Amino acid sequence: MCPRMELKTVKKKLDFCTHYSVRVYYEDTDAGGVVYYANYLKFVERARTEFLREIGIPHEDIKKKWSVEFVVRSSLIDYIKPAFLDDLLEVRTCCVEVRGASSTLKQEVLKEDTLIVDTTIKIACISMENSRAVKMPSDIRVAFDRIKIT
Amino acid sequence: MCPRMELKTVKKKLDFCTHYSVRVYYEDTDAGGVVYYANYLKFVERARTEFLREIGIPHEDIKKKWSVEFVVRSSLIDYIKPAFLDDLLEVRTCCVEVRGASSTLKQEVLKEDTLIVDTTIKIACISMENSRAVKMPSDIRVAFDRIKIT
Amino acid sequence: MCPRMELKTVKKKLDFCTHYSVRVYYEDTDAGGVVYYANYLKFVERARTEFLREIGIPHEDIKKKWSVEFVVRSSLIDYIKPAFLDDLLEVRTCCVEVRGASSTLKQEVLKEDTLIVDTTIKIACISMENSRAVKMPSDIRVAFDRIKIT
Amino acid sequence: MCPRMELKTVKKKLDFCTHYSVRVYYEDTDAGGVVYYANYLKFVERARTEFLREIGIPHEDIKKKWSVEFVVRSSLIDYIKPAFLDDLLEVRTCCVEVRGASSTLKQEVLKEDTLIVDTTIKIACISMENSRAVKMPSDIRVAFDRIKIT
Repeated sequence: MCPRMELKTVKKKLDFCTHYSVRVYYEDTDAGGVVYYANYLKFVERARTEFLREIGIPHEDIKKKWSVEFVVRSSLIDYIKPAFLDDLLEVRTCCVEVRGASSTLKQEVLKEDTLIVDTTIKIACISMENSRAVKMPSDIRVAFDRIKIT
Repeated sequence: MCPRMELKTVKKKLDFCTHYSVRVYYEDTDAGGVVYYANYLKFVERARTEFLREIGIPHEDIKKKWSVEFVVRSSLIDYIKPAFLDDLLEVRTCCVEVRGASSTLKQEVLKEDTLIVDTTIKIACISMENSRAVKMPSDIRVAFDRIKIT
Repeated sequence: MCPRMELKTVKKKLDFCTHYSVRVYYEDTDAGGVVYYANYLKFVERARTEFLREIGIPHEDIKKKWSVEFVVRSSLIDYIKPAFLDDLLEVRTCCVEVRGASSTLKQEVLKEDTLIVDTTIKIACISMENSRAVKMPSDIRVAFDRIKIT
Repeated sequence: MCPRMELKTVKKKLDFCTHYSVRVYYEDTDAGGVVYYANYLKFVERARTEFLREIGIPHEDIKKKWSVEFVVRSSLIDYIKPAFLDDLLEVRTCCVEVRGASSTLKQEVLKEDTLIVDTTIKIACISMENSRAVKMPSDIRVAFDRIKIT
């Protein structure tokens, strides 16, 4: 499977995504004067968390209710343009694939409607007991389906 | 191009890589009890920096001598196993492709000789004047060629 | 001067402070299951930045308009209670002292109205030309006076 | 108690400290071109951890053997000079006070033998069962005494 190719094919259908705003602070930048390349993974995780919270599924519930948690299996990040101190960025999150025990998200970072960073994040549902992949709870599956690009 | 497939094909020839050690501290971990997923990008950047320092090319020299700098164009990270507080990890860095203005590195994170995180990082050489892609200085090109997997 | 004693004396007059909300994400926590101790300095810096933005003085303006910038001279942090993943925290920022070239802020982090972390941050205004302490621009001085505890 | 005054009085006796080296990478810096002010707390924690490891007491042992852990109660940081990308810093750690359930450390960050950041960190020993302060295990007490300034 090649995550990069998936990205290409879905680029035109972003309307179904959830939106999340990120302000760039000193902590996010580096001596190059731009947002440090690892920190986009923080931004997109915040967006995933807020998406789950919005639909009523905070982290704690996932653990308590279903004894599962989500882990990231792979991240693909394309850095298109830099972001700077004080920038107000937007993260758009869509789902490109929903499987039994995993889901692939496309999360774009935009600045004034221009795509600056493009990510594809594959997350998997694992049992808290033995860390093995398990079927996603149906509530979460439904949530991912709601932001799925068809 | 599918970075993941490239990774597969080169997996057998790691002997030419440079090695760099990373100790996991509290700062690197998260409430899941493991190394936070963004922090592997810190570890592999440290390894790239030390590789350049070892061959006599620190960041400052690149800027002063050639008026260029390196930026990351894309990162692909496969999370295979988690790492924990106090773990001693090793980062192995090889070069899988050297082009005129860019280079693709394969950087593996290992724990006791087991691969736990696999990354492919594409870096590009840009002019400090206008941020446009420019030809890599030949000293750096030679350095990348030295750790290239053929 | 003993920052800790200052803190004690001003504890009763928090009503004039500015307020800023912080959500705790995985990136903020560590393997101890709590917010990592260095990260409170990120939270209070975000609050200082938003305070300046609210009153119409973003970072860029400070640099462009007056050729000065603010640096932190000292930080005192008292950790009273831990914060956890998904917590919604509040940062309250007051000014306890305004001098010619520096200002001392008291920044409290609260969770459901309970003080969990107490900080005293001394910031100084320096010239961008030679990094020497210079008199604060009067607009900023006025802003600090507005949140000053008398 | 005023941590800052303690710092002043002990400044002359640094010979008994442990030493730990820190290289500054991009991840440590911010758009001001210097090490981000929160990150010195990461550096000094690494030094504390390595001190404990050196004397044979890694984090895991503390938890397993004695069912206690150490938490930071307060941090005082004086920023004297900035540090920059690629700097090689040294952290010197001494103990200024050892009590039954807590210890106060003085941790200095130096660059080429010049003091650039001065910290005083108070850590407390707590029970893992109920998070209450408990007497430090004597092995750790002895370790702190070894680096104590009298």
